[in-house]
Amino acid sequence: MEGKQFVTQIADIETNFAQWYTDVVLKTELVDYGPVKGTMVIRPYGYAIWENIQADMDARFKKAGSKNAYFPLLIPMSFFTKEAEHVEGFAPEVAVVTHAGGAKLEEPLAIRPTSETVIGTMYAKWIQSYRDLPVIMNQWCNVMRWEKTTRPFLRTSEFLWQEGHTVHATEEEAMDETLKMLNVYREFMEETLAIPVFCGRKTDKEKFAGAVATFGLEAMMLDGKSLQIGTSHYLGQNFSKAFDIKFLDKDSTLKNGYTTSWGTSTRMIGGIIMAHGDQRGLVLPPKVAPIQTIIIPIAAHKGGVIEKAKEIEAVLLNAGVRAETDTRDMSPGWKFNEWEMKGVPLRVEIGPRDIENGQVTVMRRDTLEKTVVKIEEIGEYIKTALLTVQKDMLEKSRSKRDKKIVTANSLEEILKGVEEKNFVKAGWCGCRECEDKVKETAAATARVMCDEEGVPTRCAICGKEAKHNVIFARAY
Amino acid sequence: MEGKQFVTQIADIETNFAQWYTDVVLKTELVDYGPVKGTMVIRPYGYAIWENIQADMDARFKKAGSKNAYFPLLIPMSFFTKEAEHVEGFAPEVAVVTHAGGAKLEEPLAIRPTSETVIGTMYAKWIQSYRDLPVIMNQWCNVMRWEKTTRPFLRTSEFLWQEGHTVHATEEEAMDETLKMLNVYREFMEETLAIPVFCGRKTDKEKFAGAVATFGLEAMMLDGKSLQIGTSHYLGQNFSKAFDIKFLDKDSTLKNGYTTSWGTSTRMIGGIIMAHGDQRGLVLPPKVAPIQTIIIPIAAHKGGVIEKAKEIEAVLLNAGVRAETDTRDMSPGWKFNEWEMKGVPLRVEIGPRDIENGQVTVMRRDTLEKTVVKIEEIGEYIKTALLTVQKDMLEKSRSKRDKKIVTANSLEEILKGVEEKNFVKAGWCGCRECEDKVKETAAATARVMCDEEGVPTRCAICGKEAKHNVIFARAY
Repeated sequence: MEGKQFVTQIADIETNFAQWYTDVVLKTELVDYGPVKGTMVIRPYGYAIWENIQADMDARFKKAGSKNAYFPLLIPMSFFTKEAEHVEGFAPEVAVVTHAGGAKLEEPLAIRPTSETVIGTMYAKWIQSYRDLPVIMNQWCNVMRWEKTTRPFLRTSEFLWQEGHTVHATEEEAMDETLKMLNVYREFMEETLAIPVFCGRKTDKEKFAGAVATFGLEAMMLDGKSLQIGTSHYLGQNFSKAFDIKFLDKDSTLKNGYTTSWGTSTRMIGGIIMAHGDQRGLVLPPKVAPIQTIIIPIAAHKGGVIEKAKEIEAVLLNAGVRAETDTRDMSPGWKFNEWEMKGVPLRVEIGPRDIENGQVTVMRRDTLEKTVVKIEEIGEYIKTALLTVQKDMLEKSRSKRDKKIVTANSLEEILKGVEEKNFVKAGWCGCRECEDKVKETAAATARVMCDEEGVPTRCAICGKEAKHNVIFARAY
Repeated sequence: MEGKQFVTQIADIETNFAQWYTDVVLKTELVDYGPVKGTMVIRPYGYAIWENIQADMDARFKKAGSKNAYFPLLIPMSFFTKEAEHVEGFAPEVAVVTHAGGAKLEEPLAIRPTSETVIGTMYAKWIQSYRDLPVIMNQWCNVMRWEKTTRPFLRTSEFLWQEGHTVHATEEEAMDETLKMLNVYREFMEETLAIPVFCGRKTDKEKFAGAVATFGLEAMMLDGKSLQIGTSHYLGQNFSKAFDIKFLDKDSTLKNGYTTSWGTSTRMIGGIIMAHGDQRGLVLPPKVAPIQTIIIPIAAHKGGVIEKAKEIEAVLLNAGVRAETDTRDMSPGWKFNEWEMKGVPLRVEIGPRDIENGQVTVMRRDTLEKTVVKIEEIGEYIKTALLTVQKDMLEKSRSKRDKKIVTANSLEEILKGVEEKNFVKAGWCGCRECEDKVKETAAATARVMCDEEGVPTRCAICGKEAKHNVIFARAY
C-alpha cells in the first residue's frame, strides 16, 4: 500500500516528538529550509495559513482602534543604545549592514529585530499635543534575530510578524491598552487557532528587554512543553524618555507619553501544529485551514463521478467553504493519506454507488468519524460541521491541557511535574535565585504568573513566604 | 482664513511639480522620511491605500492561478554571480550584511533587491517532473536597492512590492504567462487606479538585468513624464540554467524550464498622486481611497446634526462604502480643505437647514461639482456616484494623455515633443547609438515599443530603415 508509507514516514509522535514536528512541517510542504542557515521558506500551503491568520487578526486589531503602517527595515545601530536594557537584550542578535551601494556605510545599520526604536523616533516627531493621543499603530513585516539553534516557525533568523506600538497620555491608559491587546490575542488564539492559553505577567527575568512589564500567552503543546505564542508589553516611559516622545498636556505642561508594544508571529503556525497534530500529521482548525473540505472522487474513471464531485465543490464554494476536488490520477487511498497528513478538516468521498444513493461520506479529520450525508443537504451539513470541528478542537485541547496541570510544593515536585510533561503551578517568593534554581534543576522556566487564582503560602523552592503563583514549564 | 492656508502651502502644480509632489505626500500624511537616508515611513493614510491595492491585486493574481509564498530576505552574494547580466545590474545597488549574532559572517549576504536567485534555487529543489509544472508563485515583501537620489514612493532604498515567479515547460507557455500577467496589470491599473497605460516590450537597454525580454507598463504623469508602473519579464532559460531548474519531460529527457517574473510596487501610489492630483492636493480613485466619503456636519453644535451625520454614516457603511464623519472641533471650511487635500472622492455636507429639508449636499472631489441629494436616497446615490467617479477619472486621464501624444520624424522633433511634455512616437532603427543620442539630446528614453500600431518607414534619429515604433519620453 503506497498510502501506508506516508504514515510511517512521519516519526513517532510519542517517542520522537521533535522529529515528528520536522517531518510534518517538511512533508506537508508548509515550509522548507532557506539557503542561508537558520532561514525558512514559507511554501504556499504554509503561507495560506498565515494569510488566514493575518486576515482574522487584522480585523480584530482594526476593531480595537489600530491602524496599519510600515516603518523601515534598517535601524541605525546607535538607536539601540538609547535604551539600556533594550540594547543589552537585542544587540547580540542583530544582523548588521555595513556596506551598501558599493561603499562602506558611515554608521552600521541593524536589520530590525523589533521596531520600538525606529517607531519611537517617528512618534517623537509626530506627537505634539494631547490631542494627538492615543497613537495606535500596527505593522505586518519581517524581522530578524540571529539565533544559534533554529527550527521552522518556532525560531528562525528571519520571521514574519505583526508588532503594535502605542502611545498614551497616562500610565493607566497604557496599561489598559496592554491588557486589552493581551485579551484580543487570547480570544484570537482560542476562537481561531482553537488553542487555549494561559495569560499572565512574566517575571522580570523573562520580560521583554526594555519593558516595565511583559504579559505573555502560553500554550501547552502535545509534549507538555509551553510555547510563548504572543506577548503584550507595558513599556512605561522607558522608550518615551529614550526617544523623547513628549506631548503638551491639557495643563500646558510638556510630558513624556506612556508606550506599549505587542506582537505575534509565524510562530503561531508552529503552535497549531504542536497543539493539534497526531500521528497522521496536521490537524488544522477550520478557520485557518487553506482547504476546509477536500472532495475525493472514488472510481473517478466512471462516468459522472468527477462531474458530481465538481457540483458539490460548487455548492460548497457558494456556501463560503474553501473546498477543492482532488482529480489527480492517483488512488483514493493515497489521496486520503495525503490530505489527512495535510490536516484538511473535512473529507467528502463520492463514488458511483454514492451517486446512485444520493449520498456522500464525510470524514472529520479531528475525530476520524465518518457520517453519511444526503447530497442535497451537503452545503448546510459542511458549514455546520466546520463550526463543530472548530469548537470541539478547542474543547479537546482545553481538556487535554487541564489534565496536565499540577501543583508543586517543592523543587522536587516541580522537577517531577515537568518530567511528566505537565505545567506546574507553584508558589514563588519572587527572587531570581529561586527562579534560576528551577531552571538548573528542572530545565523549566517561569512561564507566567497567575496570582489572580490565589497565591500559595510558601515558595516551593526556598520555603519563604510566596509572593506569586507561577506556572513553571519547559518551553520552546 | 485658516483653511486657505492649506492650499497655499502646497507648491504650484504648474510651475513646480516636484515640490508640489513632495508637499502633497508629506502634508497629506501618506509618508514621512525615515531616519536612514533614502528610506520612507508609510503612514496609516498611505498604508491604507497600499492595503486596498494589495487586496484588489491579490484577488486578480489568485484568479490567474498564482499562490502566495514567502522567501528569505537574505541572499548569499555568490548567488548573484550565477547570472552574468543579473549581477552586473544589481550588485552595485545591494545592501550587504557582513556581521550577525556578534560575529563576522563567512559569506556576506545581500538584502534582496529582487528574488530570482533565491527563488530559482528553491524551485530547482522542488521541481522534478513535468507534472510539477507550471509553478506560479507570488510574494508580497520588502526589497532594497541602494539609490543615490530618492523620492518617496518613486525611488527609495527600501520599498514594498509583489514579485511573481513562474516556471514553465515550454518557451511558448512562459511567454504566454509573461503577457497574461502584463494584461492583469494593465486591467488593474485602468480599472482600479484609473490610470491608462501603454504596454509594450522594452528595448534591450531598458530591460531587466537577466531577462530575454521585458514588457513594461508606462503611465503619463501630469507633467508629461512617464512612470514605469509595472513590468513583466520573460527570462527564457537564463535563470533556469544558472540555477539548475530542470524537469524530466514526458519524453523522459531532462530539460531546463522557462521562467518569468513580474512585479509592481508602492511606486504605484506615486503614480496615483501624479496622474490624478491637482492644486488642492490628492484626488484618489474610489477603489483605493481609504475613506470614500467624508461626512461634514455644519453648525455641529446645533442639536441633531451630529446624530443625523452618524445616521448617514451608518447607512453608507451598511452599503459597503468606506465612510467617516469628521466630528472634530474645527470649522467646516478647515475640514473641507483638509479632506480635499487628502483626496476623498465624495464629501457629504449636512447642517440644520439640510435636515429640515430632508437633504444633503454632495461634492465630488474630482470635478468639484455639488449636488443636492435627498437623505432617503443617500445610500444608492453614493454607491452610484463612486462608480461614476471611478469611471470618469480613467476617461479624464485617458483623454488628457491622448492629447499629449505626438509623432516625430527627427531628433529635433523628439526634443521639441518631450520639451512640450509629450510622449513622442518615433521610428527607430533598433541600434543602441540612436537610443543613446535621444537620451543625450532630449533627456528622454525609449519607454516601450508599440510596433503593433505600425512601424514608421525611417528611424527618426539616423534616417535608416526603422524596425520599431518607439514611445520616447522623459521618465521617473
